[in-house]
Amino acid sequence: MDIARMIDHTLLKQDASTEAIVKLCEEAKQFHFASVCVNPGFVPLAAKELKGSDVKVCTVVGFPLGATLPESKAYEAKLAIEAGATEVDMVLNDSMAKEHNYSYIEDEVRLVKKACGKVLLKVILETCLLTPEEITECSKACVRAGADYVKTSTGFSKGGATVEAVKLMRAAVGPNIGVKASGGIHSRAEAEAMIKAGASRIGASCGVAIVKGE
Amino acid sequence: MDIARMIDHTLLKQDASTEAIVKLCEEAKQFHFASVCVNPGFVPLAAKELKGSDVKVCTVVGFPLGATLPESKAYEAKLAIEAGATEVDMVLNDSMAKEHNYSYIEDEVRLVKKACGKVLLKVILETCLLTPEEITECSKACVRAGADYVKTSTGFSKGGATVEAVKLMRAAVGPNIGVKASGGIHSRAEAEAMIKAGASRIGASCGVAIVKGE
Repeated sequence: MDIARMIDHTLLKQDASTEAIVKLCEEAKQFHFASVCVNPGFVPLAAKELKGSDVKVCTVVGFPLGATLPESKAYEAKLAIEAGATEVDMVLNDSMAKEHNYSYIEDEVRLVKKACGKVLLKVILETCLLTPEEITECSKACVRAGADYVKTSTGFSKGGATVEAVKLMRAAVGPNIGVKASGGIHSRAEAEAMIKAGASRIGASCGVAIVKGE
Repeated sequence: MDIARMIDHTLLKQDASTEAIVKLCEEAKQFHFASVCVNPGFVPLAAKELKGSDVKVCTVVGFPLGATLPESKAYEAKLAIEAGATEVDMVLNDSMAKEHNYSYIEDEVRLVKKACGKVLLKVILETCLLTPEEITECSKACVRAGADYVKTSTGFSKGGATVEAVKLMRAAVGPNIGVKASGGIHSRAEAEAMIKAGASRIGASCGVAIVKGE
């Protein structure tokens, strides 16, 4: 298993430096990670650094609260793609998820997917805030709306990925949609446990340590 | 001193319920707070609840990381205003602040202010991540760009408002620009200490306790 090709090498701190983003891109090229995942403000830099490489430029939308207007998320995705993003991780509206307003979620995901076109769209559920039933229903709403992946966590809330959440999401979306486990994955063993549970992508800030088996 | 008229009654949790936002608006009308501060997704609801009252609808943009593209922040502000927001609290790009790229900050604030027009714009510095010099220089850049207020904190980072940060900001912006202290203000005594240091607005989730002197 080539675990490196499953890793989104991630740096989303609000005061991340230009230097740290350049280093992230260099590591991603060296280890052939699937992507780097950076905030939209650093997409132009990452796109420049990764030009001609096999590493995608992933960014985040409506991040990390997911509480902005759907049209705002769609426009943010459009701008980021124009700036060079080739994968988009959006956060869904967790207030609406908690109120079981799954048609709202389906509509907002569909709107953002329309803005993404062929660009891969992953939808973050913030599973630590949701019940198992809410995780299942949100995952299904994402599939109906055309999402390419569902994703467990932003890494900015109370908790990160769990084996249980990944299993629920994989069962809900079936075999043809991606599941990204992210948040709190610090070791190769943790990453492999997520993959065994059904994850097809891993979001982590310590991808190098994971690849090296540290 | 009518402290209620200085308070932005705030609820920005990513899973806040519709019911909790309605309650926030009812309290704001009862105690005559300056505004309610809610995520953009709840602006239509807050605008409906507060119609005909003396309470403004404040929302947040690029929140809480401030790490998205400037054009995205401007569009988010425009959409929120169309949906009923009458005050906008944007987060500046803290990576650029840490790199002392104050012209970047001036440009992004100017772009958002242009989208706001006459709607009040407050700019959040996330002071807990900045040095005193960076707080001063960011505050000055905000003034040059036409901001109406500078604001200490998102409430989502390592720390909230401090008397020291408020003093620095007041000294930097002079007497004619607002200073909003927010993050971790839980009591009347804390709110009064911020006002004494130069704050002209208080952001707090426990405005009722502050007004009642609890």
